[in-house]
Amino acid sequence: MKFDKNTKILIVGLGVIGGSYATALTREGYRVSCITKNPEDIRYAIARGMIERGTSEVDAALIGESELIIFALYPTAFTEWIRDYQHLFSPGALITDVTGVKCSVVKPVQDILRPDVEFISAHPMAGRERSGVEFSDPDVFRGANYIVTPTEKNTPEAIEICKELGRALGFARISELTPEAHDEMIAFVSQLTHVIAVTLMTANETPSLEKYTGDSFRDLTRIAKINDAMWSELFLSNKNALLAEIDRFTNELTRFRDMLACGDREGMRAAMRRSTERRSLFDKPEA
Amino acid sequence: MKFDKNTKILIVGLGVIGGSYATALTREGYRVSCITKNPEDIRYAIARGMIERGTSEVDAALIGESELIIFALYPTAFTEWIRDYQHLFSPGALITDVTGVKCSVVKPVQDILRPDVEFISAHPMAGRERSGVEFSDPDVFRGANYIVTPTEKNTPEAIEICKELGRALGFARISELTPEAHDEMIAFVSQLTHVIAVTLMTANETPSLEKYTGDSFRDLTRIAKINDAMWSELFLSNKNALLAEIDRFTNELTRFRDMLACGDREGMRAAMRRSTERRSLFDKPEA
Repeated sequence: MKFDKNTKILIVGLGVIGGSYATALTREGYRVSCITKNPEDIRYAIARGMIERGTSEVDAALIGESELIIFALYPTAFTEWIRDYQHLFSPGALITDVTGVKCSVVKPVQDILRPDVEFISAHPMAGRERSGVEFSDPDVFRGANYIVTPTEKNTPEAIEICKELGRALGFARISELTPEAHDEMIAFVSQLTHVIAVTLMTANETPSLEKYTGDSFRDLTRIAKINDAMWSELFLSNKNALLAEIDRFTNELTRFRDMLACGDREGMRAAMRRSTERRSLFDKPEA
Repeated sequence: MKFDKNTKILIVGLGVIGGSYATALTREGYRVSCITKNPEDIRYAIARGMIERGTSEVDAALIGESELIIFALYPTAFTEWIRDYQHLFSPGALITDVTGVKCSVVKPVQDILRPDVEFISAHPMAGRERSGVEFSDPDVFRGANYIVTPTEKNTPEAIEICKELGRALGFARISELTPEAHDEMIAFVSQLTHVIAVTLMTANETPSLEKYTGDSFRDLTRIAKINDAMWSELFLSNKNALLAEIDRFTNELTRFRDMLACGDREGMRAAMRRSTERRSLFDKPEA
């Protein structure tokens, strides 16, 4: 398979990420079709020129002619789709995804997949608080990270095509991680932060707190507006890694609490200086 | 005392907040003088038209002619300044401040203050991650909260002038809280969030995490770049309230952790729906 402007690309699942992929690729001159459950989403995307064509049916002809198929579904729905419909893929098709957890998806899918089809998994680390194609926006990929998670079953050619896809979408940094390293990383930088934001929002329900809120509280809870169906599934799909990060964070929080309790000003200042220094590593590169 | 364009205003402490006050008031046509330790900060502010005049000395004549004196110092430095130099105030002068904690400041200062001078305390809930007058920016007050914390020692006239000052500075919401209610609120919406951001930054020092970071982690750790001298003092000045909020947060985090550990998907989804609903209350009003 080659990846160029003539490649027949199919996106399965036209939500906020699938829609952002569609617009980004169409804008760059690629030819994009789509399968998604809700026919209104297809009409929406065609009316706005986001896709060339689409259907809400599992259209055997469309699937059979597609060369690069991008799954933008929740983890369980993705795995079930492969199990139920993989007989429709054409030989040599390349499959990729956008799933936010990897261990519970990559090997299970690779294990059941037809040997004449290859699945190379990737995680576009960008999103919106809202769900649905009407909130899609390809500009969220600018300056963001795109992570490819190959296994020993992947070919160098498929890994390279997957990275080209990330570049075509406009991501700033393309990198590779094993599924295991990805899931440990994501448990910390993404899942733990969502758990903290939700917890901040439910820990203290004193009325009228919103009247007195500053930017720092708003920043820490922006992601507390959360798609509960998707995130509960992502958390459960990465349970052990996330539990380990929650425990590690709780231990460090308790250490800080104890410094405060016993008036250890120098200990707190050392932690703050360390956090200040370390945080500068995380500034977003200029897009 | 009256508050109008002829009021002689003195700002003590020309850091990021004192500097933002100076620019905001000067821009509105008020007459602002300044006392601060570093003579370079005075030269900087005069060169940019932020203040009419200023000195790095404790200038008895300047203090004696000032009608409204705004202290933008750390809590301990503020209390010490009052103790050492309050004999220089003119009778009838009105004192206010910008301190981020109140119980440890308001009553101690009111208790030692000359009876012919009134101290009305306020907290402008806006700031920058950086410190120093060169990072001051009066636009951080737009859309933000300004809280007046009167006690039984304050007169209605002083409370009203303090609110007028907040309006002149451009704050969107002006409200009143007791020092006790203020400190409980601030322990939750501001201090706890800074503790969490610092803890996130020091809990997991795996190398190269920054390569894989998305916007959510950046949002939760923006305030992890922190002025360690000031925040350690603010935390210690509000120790009991902050300890209570850390404990409440830790308990709620443990409750979420236990739902995840035993696979309680519906419990996690209920917490997420609650946080989503509650978070919409906290959206910033349009400026």
